[in-house]
Amino acid sequence: MTFTISKANLERLQDLAARKQDEELLEAVRDLHPADLAEVLDQLDLGDAQYLFERLEPERAALVVLELPEDLRDNLLGNYTGKEIAEELIEHIDSDDAADVIAELPDQVREEVLANIEDVAQRKEINELLTYDEHTAGALMAKELVKVNAGSSMLDCVRELRQHADHVDDIFVILVVDDHDRLVGSIPIKALLTTSLRTPVKDVYDPDVISVRAHEHVEEVSRIMEKYDLVILPVVDDRGKLLGRITIDDAVDAIREEETEDAHRMAGMEALEYSYSNSSLWEMVKKRSGWLIVLFVGESFTATAMGFFEDQIARAVVLALFIPLIISSGGNTGSQASTLIIRALALGDITIQEWWRIFRREVSVGLTLGVILGCIGFIRVAIWSQFMDIYGPHWQMVGLVVALALVGVVLWGNLVGSLFPLVLKRFGMDPATSSAPFVATVVDVTGLVIYFSIAAIFLREILT
Amino acid sequence: MTFTISKANLERLQDLAARKQDEELLEAVRDLHPADLAEVLDQLDLGDAQYLFERLEPERAALVVLELPEDLRDNLLGNYTGKEIAEELIEHIDSDDAADVIAELPDQVREEVLANIEDVAQRKEINELLTYDEHTAGALMAKELVKVNAGSSMLDCVRELRQHADHVDDIFVILVVDDHDRLVGSIPIKALLTTSLRTPVKDVYDPDVISVRAHEHVEEVSRIMEKYDLVILPVVDDRGKLLGRITIDDAVDAIREEETEDAHRMAGMEALEYSYSNSSLWEMVKKRSGWLIVLFVGESFTATAMGFFEDQIARAVVLALFIPLIISSGGNTGSQASTLIIRALALGDITIQEWWRIFRREVSVGLTLGVILGCIGFIRVAIWSQFMDIYGPHWQMVGLVVALALVGVVLWGNLVGSLFPLVLKRFGMDPATSSAPFVATVVDVTGLVIYFSIAAIFLREILT
Repeated sequence: MTFTISKANLERLQDLAARKQDEELLEAVRDLHPADLAEVLDQLDLGDAQYLFERLEPERAALVVLELPEDLRDNLLGNYTGKEIAEELIEHIDSDDAADVIAELPDQVREEVLANIEDVAQRKEINELLTYDEHTAGALMAKELVKVNAGSSMLDCVRELRQHADHVDDIFVILVVDDHDRLVGSIPIKALLTTSLRTPVKDVYDPDVISVRAHEHVEEVSRIMEKYDLVILPVVDDRGKLLGRITIDDAVDAIREEETEDAHRMAGMEALEYSYSNSSLWEMVKKRSGWLIVLFVGESFTATAMGFFEDQIARAVVLALFIPLIISSGGNTGSQASTLIIRALALGDITIQEWWRIFRREVSVGLTLGVILGCIGFIRVAIWSQFMDIYGPHWQMVGLVVALALVGVVLWGNLVGSLFPLVLKRFGMDPATSSAPFVATVVDVTGLVIYFSIAAIFLREILT
Repeated sequence: MTFTISKANLERLQDLAARKQDEELLEAVRDLHPADLAEVLDQLDLGDAQYLFERLEPERAALVVLELPEDLRDNLLGNYTGKEIAEELIEHIDSDDAADVIAELPDQVREEVLANIEDVAQRKEINELLTYDEHTAGALMAKELVKVNAGSSMLDCVRELRQHADHVDDIFVILVVDDHDRLVGSIPIKALLTTSLRTPVKDVYDPDVISVRAHEHVEEVSRIMEKYDLVILPVVDDRGKLLGRITIDDAVDAIREEETEDAHRMAGMEALEYSYSNSSLWEMVKKRSGWLIVLFVGESFTATAMGFFEDQIARAVVLALFIPLIISSGGNTGSQASTLIIRALALGDITIQEWWRIFRREVSVGLTLGVILGCIGFIRVAIWSQFMDIYGPHWQMVGLVVALALVGVVLWGNLVGSLFPLVLKRFGMDPATSSAPFVATVVDVTGLVIYFSIAAIFLREILT
């Protein structure tokens, strides 16, 4: 198996595809892992990718489809009818993957695909999977699994496993159900080799099986799988009936997707649908401009707020010089705080019920950080004043105002930053939503008011 | 198995621990999963946690130790001698977990523990694991695995597996090696049940086994496991000799840790060692203040830069009003761009070799976003001017300056934001390091220069 594709190798493949050298091309990609072959297709011109894709054996093509970036998948499948997709692709892949592929198809094609799946059981399974909300355990699970009744023997387990060995790829455990198909336990597959085949299942299975309800969020799924180090997580309905199983690789993909979405949201943009390099310029502008405009409108209140202090600024221009310094310190502190809280929430380390403890703690941290920056700010003004006349004769007062404003703005930024994600979560929203820049914007506007209010108090003589 | 611990249950346990009710307490935690028991210990007062921990059976205690937050682990293990740790804990856990626990101990205790491990093979394995750099595949792998020689039969596989079934928890594949102990293939465990035991291993094993070198970074490990949907990844040395294996749950933990560290760094702070709720106030201030001070010092150049434009501001105070709006737009765009690039790098979607493509693309995106915000900025000035006199008679000129400055600053912010992580990576640093706030700071300082330079050109008449 070629493990990564060298540049030279890729160029050779591109050349073969461009020159439509069927046999040589297929021979060259024959030993590639589907994931690598998908990467090759992504690197070819679309026409050449179609050319190669159409020439793959159906079973191989089906596995490759699962690994393709979504835009390329849409393009390559665009040439097929629903019937072809059903018969050549869907029949060769697991129910969860099939549901994922079908869910992304245009409405009309989707119906046509579903109508053309010949295996009634498979069609039913896929239809069931399609009913679950995205981002739930149900949408992530596969129907393929090996299960036995609690009343059977280990020999039945082996028979059951042999029967499913071909079409269930990742068999790590056998799930045990009662007469009502409710999940009651699990048997690690190694037990089949270390236990006599005449042993009843009830003497072997582990009743401490951890499962998840179908409607739980994928974040909960990954939290459970991580906490208990699981490779397989059975999914049950509200009555405990076994519905399917989630394998860790799907959970990992889901975690990665969520983390990337979170990161994008935290940076003040909508999460990208495709990867960075597969997103069009227009797509990129669309996902980024929305929040930028919202933040811009929010931030434009700084101009309004400063309008009220225009006279102050006119009388003491020196005040204007420190505006970016003071408000950005508040913003930086706020973005630290919001990131800490968002991560801690995502990892299940804290809950919103603990807001009061978090609040008290962040008051202390914010005050400490504010005092540190305030001192540095004062020292900076003091040192500069020794060498230039820029801050005028009242530099001590200017320094004091800057220092106090820093304490206030940093403390305030820290509180806004740490509580804002909790508020979002409280109202059922994603705490990551645009948090850092949004907090920075709020703190910019209010920070100016704090700064100029402090200035008004301490510089009254100078300003009037 | 109790799956999550209810508040009432927790309070009862706290009460039992406080009242030192041995028997009742142990009975109450008997059925808890080690991960849940670790959570309970974390919720108890330290004294009570010690009391309970000392009363657990060694095998149970060993599993619980692995799940404890690091600070509590340090505290609980602090009461034990190296000999006790070796004999009561280390002997019950896998080599990779043992190495993790030992690596965190104080130097002296570590030596004592190693000297007291009675099983020579285990001591040798742990010593080997301790030699690998943190964040490498070698440090993540476990030595426990089931392997057979390519010349043996399936019956040998079953024998080998039975022999190891007790102390290797996660047996999903059997690894196949040649006479020089080099990895040549793998056999899924289900094959043992579907193939005749007389079949030679060479007829069954899959030679397309994916492995990783011991010195590879954990990011590469998780990239490979994700890409190829692996549950087990064998680790080999430079000659291909089989050294150990990494299981997906360890890789998931590593991913999560890296993601959290990245998120913290991106927000402009050092990554926390412990979780948010387990970090002390002092720890928090230490991790956060360093970068805040660096950013503050950087940002204080805004005051210096504005000092040069003090006369301009004095003559047209209106210019000062738009400072926060303009520089924060540059910062927001830059933080979007840096986050996009950092995530795309982490997911292996782009490489630094593509910087020129990224640069050209981000010029277009930045220009588009700049023009959008510039137009909105102009409209805002125009509308306000109809209702108040705040921007004076030259409001068209002010609007134009604001709009052009926005185009320039947003474009500039976008370029700095997208290229800065690539530069960090090029010089072998973590691209996430303080990226968003650092970019914002750089853009704040340079953005002011852009803004006032544009103002100087277009408002020359008004300003002189």
